[in-house]
Amino acid sequence: MKTANASQAGMILREREPLNLEMPFGSLDGFITPVERFFVRSHFAVPDIDVRRWRLKIEGEVETPLELTYDELKGMETHTLPVTLECAGNGRAFLTPQAKGAQWERGAVGNAKWTGVRLADVLRRAGIQDSACEVIFEGADAGEIKEPPGPAGEIHYARSMPLTKAKEDVLLAFKMNGEELTAAHGFPLRAIVPGWYGMASVKWLSRVIATAQPFNGYYQTIDYAYWQRGTSAPTLVPITEMQVKAAIARPGFADTVRAGKMCLVSGAAWTTAAEITKVEVSTDGGAKWHKAQLLGEPVFNAWRLWEYGWQAPSTPGQATLLARATDSEGRTQPTKRDEDRGSYIVNHILPIVVDIR
Amino acid sequence: MKTANASQAGMILREREPLNLEMPFGSLDGFITPVERFFVRSHFAVPDIDVRRWRLKIEGEVETPLELTYDELKGMETHTLPVTLECAGNGRAFLTPQAKGAQWERGAVGNAKWTGVRLADVLRRAGIQDSACEVIFEGADAGEIKEPPGPAGEIHYARSMPLTKAKEDVLLAFKMNGEELTAAHGFPLRAIVPGWYGMASVKWLSRVIATAQPFNGYYQTIDYAYWQRGTSAPTLVPITEMQVKAAIARPGFADTVRAGKMCLVSGAAWTTAAEITKVEVSTDGGAKWHKAQLLGEPVFNAWRLWEYGWQAPSTPGQATLLARATDSEGRTQPTKRDEDRGSYIVNHILPIVVDIR
Repeated sequence: MKTANASQAGMILREREPLNLEMPFGSLDGFITPVERFFVRSHFAVPDIDVRRWRLKIEGEVETPLELTYDELKGMETHTLPVTLECAGNGRAFLTPQAKGAQWERGAVGNAKWTGVRLADVLRRAGIQDSACEVIFEGADAGEIKEPPGPAGEIHYARSMPLTKAKEDVLLAFKMNGEELTAAHGFPLRAIVPGWYGMASVKWLSRVIATAQPFNGYYQTIDYAYWQRGTSAPTLVPITEMQVKAAIARPGFADTVRAGKMCLVSGAAWTTAAEITKVEVSTDGGAKWHKAQLLGEPVFNAWRLWEYGWQAPSTPGQATLLARATDSEGRTQPTKRDEDRGSYIVNHILPIVVDIR
Repeated sequence: MKTANASQAGMILREREPLNLEMPFGSLDGFITPVERFFVRSHFAVPDIDVRRWRLKIEGEVETPLELTYDELKGMETHTLPVTLECAGNGRAFLTPQAKGAQWERGAVGNAKWTGVRLADVLRRAGIQDSACEVIFEGADAGEIKEPPGPAGEIHYARSMPLTKAKEDVLLAFKMNGEELTAAHGFPLRAIVPGWYGMASVKWLSRVIATAQPFNGYYQTIDYAYWQRGTSAPTLVPITEMQVKAAIARPGFADTVRAGKMCLVSGAAWTTAAEITKVEVSTDGGAKWHKAQLLGEPVFNAWRLWEYGWQAPSTPGQATLLARATDSEGRTQPTKRDEDRGSYIVNHILPIVVDIR
């Protein structure tokens, strides 16, 4: 099992036990995030897994329950996809009043190349029954939820998705950027659910359960869920797809920009199942907007880097930088926070205030 | 609007605002519970409803949304059903450690004759669309949930059920024991969901919403739900059907029984969509069991009264009385508490310890 040296990579410690690490977003320097700079979100201690004894179980509403070894999985047809994962709580540190949970700034997001087998292929081997409506992913990581309303006793981290999504593009990945997964990133196997917030991409995957009832597990009701209001009464819905978002990597908060000089404003933008078609930058708090240049090629469910050359004012003072992404479905970012989202899905436009000297 | 004098009826105050009243269960004296001795469970203040302006709205996945007046409803075909309602938290006071919530003893249960129109008839008038899978009941009562994880802002009390149940036997009742509903019991209209715990029988009913998605409202996820464990990961399920249960009304806790004399042990027993076929009584803490006599005739979803003539021991001391019901589906009561049920569904056998003098 590989290890990556997070502290050497300058990662920000958000929690030591369980391990939660954030990338300093100002260090963004390419389409692919190196493993050691990819954010780590854990709910329980990293499980101690002996890969020779580990099995991936496929069970529930299937014709033939399966138990696959690591070698059997690696022997199946493999696929490699660049996929951006953003933690559903990324940006939470900017909320007022302060929200509960790890205080992620901008760096609980990363883009890696994931190699593995298609969940659809595994499900086909097991034979999904007509009764199934969802697929649950369960990790080997487990612990107790101490605060009510949690279930009694030890639970495993688990998350579900509709069968349609499970069959579409979900990967069971054993490699990240061409290397075996590290322990913190889910060795020996993790799910990669393209376009969904990171909580769906279950690490240390040990069970895949086809279920006939919508799964109301802890991590999609009490946690990673929000109250959806509408014409009907508020209903608790699990967080699923990432919302369109542009994040400024540089300059950062309270950085100094030289008066009258060119300053490259740069960052990344991402969305779900669509292309980023436009990133706009404002350097005056939103009065005027300028088109940023999109770098590289568009890739579904992976971020797109962008940059904008800004001629900083010649007089010292402060400037408020904003970035706003729009996607090929016409979706763009709200200017104000939607409070119904609680401490999750922070995709309203966040100001970066810099000093001009 | 009628009022009933609860304090004169000796009701036990469990909470003043909102109003929660318990029947002293030792006062059980017939198949029908008088209105003034029927337990009251409220989540918010009793709403102030002007019946001339009140409407029952039928909306959501329907062909024709409806707004029915009180007189229109009363003009429809009416049905009268005796139905037992038990609060899902009835018996909670006997749990150790002490459970959160109103400390109901045995009296958060009652049996009344309810008169109203069939929900099925109202739904037929509106025309349910094929997309509908559930029906939500929303009451006029509303307030804020102060503790997380609750939705922001004011919410109404609301509860749902599968469309199959909605079409089966649910009543929209405007009379209780032949009289107009009292304010505390839901005037002008309440749902009566036979066989389900009381939380489903929404009072002050104002909206009936057919919905295409399972409803995960506050009162069926955070409240009135429990963690179901199984082969799969724990999943939060809403509380629905009442579980088979016999409750001893007399003698009560720490009552004195005369040594060597006959003592009538009596109470009620109920279940869901089945008949109570047997009530057994033990007077020695469970070593020996004796058949109690079932009184009256069996009625689906209404309780059955029972009694057992006990020859008390001639030597002074203590005796532990137990009662255990069995229904026509072969279901009976557990001897031990199932902790997964949290603070709800208390149907394990509860001992009544009496003094023999």
